Amino acid sequence: MCQLLGMNANVPTDIIFSFSGFARRACEHADGFGIAFFEGRGVRCFVDAQPANASPVADLIQSYPIRSTHVVAHIRKATVGSVKLENCHPFVRELWGRYWVFAHNGDLKDYHPALHGAFRPVGATDSERAFCWLLQEMAKSHASMPAPEELTRTLRELVPQVARHGTFNFLLSQGETLWAHATTKLHHVVRQHPFRQARLQDADITMDFAEVTREGDQVAIIATEPLTVDEAWQAFAPGEIRVFQHGALLPTPA
Amino acid sequence: MCQLLGMNANVPTDIIFSFSGFARRACEHADGFGIAFFEGRGVRCFVDAQPANASPVADLIQSYPIRSTHVVAHIRKATVGSVKLENCHPFVRELWGRYWVFAHNGDLKDYHPALHGAFRPVGATDSERAFCWLLQEMAKSHASMPAPEELTRTLRELVPQVARHGTFNFLLSQGETLWAHATTKLHHVVRQHPFRQARLQDADITMDFAEVTREGDQVAIIATEPLTVDEAWQAFAPGEIRVFQHGALLPTPA
Repeated sequence: MCQLLGMNANVPTDIIFSFSGFARRACEHADGFGIAFFEGRGVRCFVDAQPANASPVADLIQSYPIRSTHVVAHIRKATVGSVKLENCHPFVRELWGRYWVFAHNGDLKDYHPALHGAFRPVGATDSERAFCWLLQEMAKSHASMPAPEELTRTLRELVPQVARHGTFNFLLSQGETLWAHATTKLHHVVRQHPFRQARLQDADITMDFAEVTREGDQVAIIATEPLTVDEAWQAFAPGEIRVFQHGALLPTPA
Repeated sequence: MCQLLGMNANVPTDIIFSFSGFARRACEHADGFGIAFFEGRGVRCFVDAQPANASPVADLIQSYPIRSTHVVAHIRKATVGSVKLENCHPFVRELWGRYWVFAHNGDLKDYHPALHGAFRPVGATDSERAFCWLLQEMAKSHASMPAPEELTRTLRELVPQVARHGTFNFLLSQGETLWAHATTKLHHVVRQHPFRQARLQDADITMDFAEVTREGDQVAIIATEPLTVDEAWQAFAPGEIRVFQHGALLPTPA
């Protein structure tokens, strides 16, 4: 089973604390990992076919505080096929003059959508096919980047068409807004004033967020499983799409 | 002035030696750098708005032997505008189910091509506009990936339309073939049997390639300026496109 980690914040925030816990899970989830950081409209995407707990790239990320407002990370457990770089999440494509980043947890059975548009998979995963199809259909529905609520409505129509093929937990972001969808398992927590301590579930590390934040800071963390033991993680309902912007959960559009 | 570095090899080869000399040039070319490594169809692209001689990402590359058959690297000197991640080369897009990597050295004046296709710039550089336009026109000319000679013929028609706007030295690769074009300055060398020593021009480092290669290995290096003092670097003629595959210069198609 793959694991997802997303962050959406209203100020550039480093992901070291959460990534440390997340990388420990690589012991069981040992077939590659990837992490994408937005900085403005630009994106850095680090992928590695080595497991996160043995990768020099993961070491770099844990020791080098890349500060970002949007992060999407993924640890991959290959279910079929060999471990190749082109099959590592997150995947990145450009649409409407913005980079889009996508990571998926789950399996889609017999999923071969008609891809006649400008997005073709490079690797062999069902995940990249789903990403290409979503972008193709998003491009058909909107000539330029729509407001987040508009795109959420579009995704509500598109996502069930993919999800009926299997498990489709995913994170999607263009560096301003983060869309998260769960069919089986996804949790989120919002860290905001008053900040307090949190202890990682996977490592004996405690962090006092009050020491590293200012009053107006707000950070949403989305993960397959809660990363900390003492925060109020909220489980997604099956089929639910949650949308995050400026570190907050956006209200559900009608 | 930006600097370009490309490598095309018939066996996975690490770029540490050449990148070490290249990174030294970052002292003068101090506004960001980027390097893309292909591994099969997959690509790793590291970009940093920090100069290569001060970047932890560049440290990683110099100490961690990522072995690749195709590398495209770039050191950026911003001529106009602020230094932002989205303006760092190389740029990556997908076309025909393959990733394409592009890095440019030079300035294009008043260059605003009609971009009505599936490729839009995310940043504000003339370089990314040129890349998007090339991909758009390549996609119009070929429904799927053509043979290298076919694409070279297409590029011979397209490239002068961009180059008339200014200096258009570039490297372009999809992980199998590397196209290099010079309007002002680009050099290449092919390292092959019998391998010998080479000394970097920018650092007191000598490497004996005979110790790290096998007889059939072949590696082409393309760089703005020769990187070594004791190899037979060949300057490009203005307007020349050279095409590399399996570490060798391909014959010029009719």
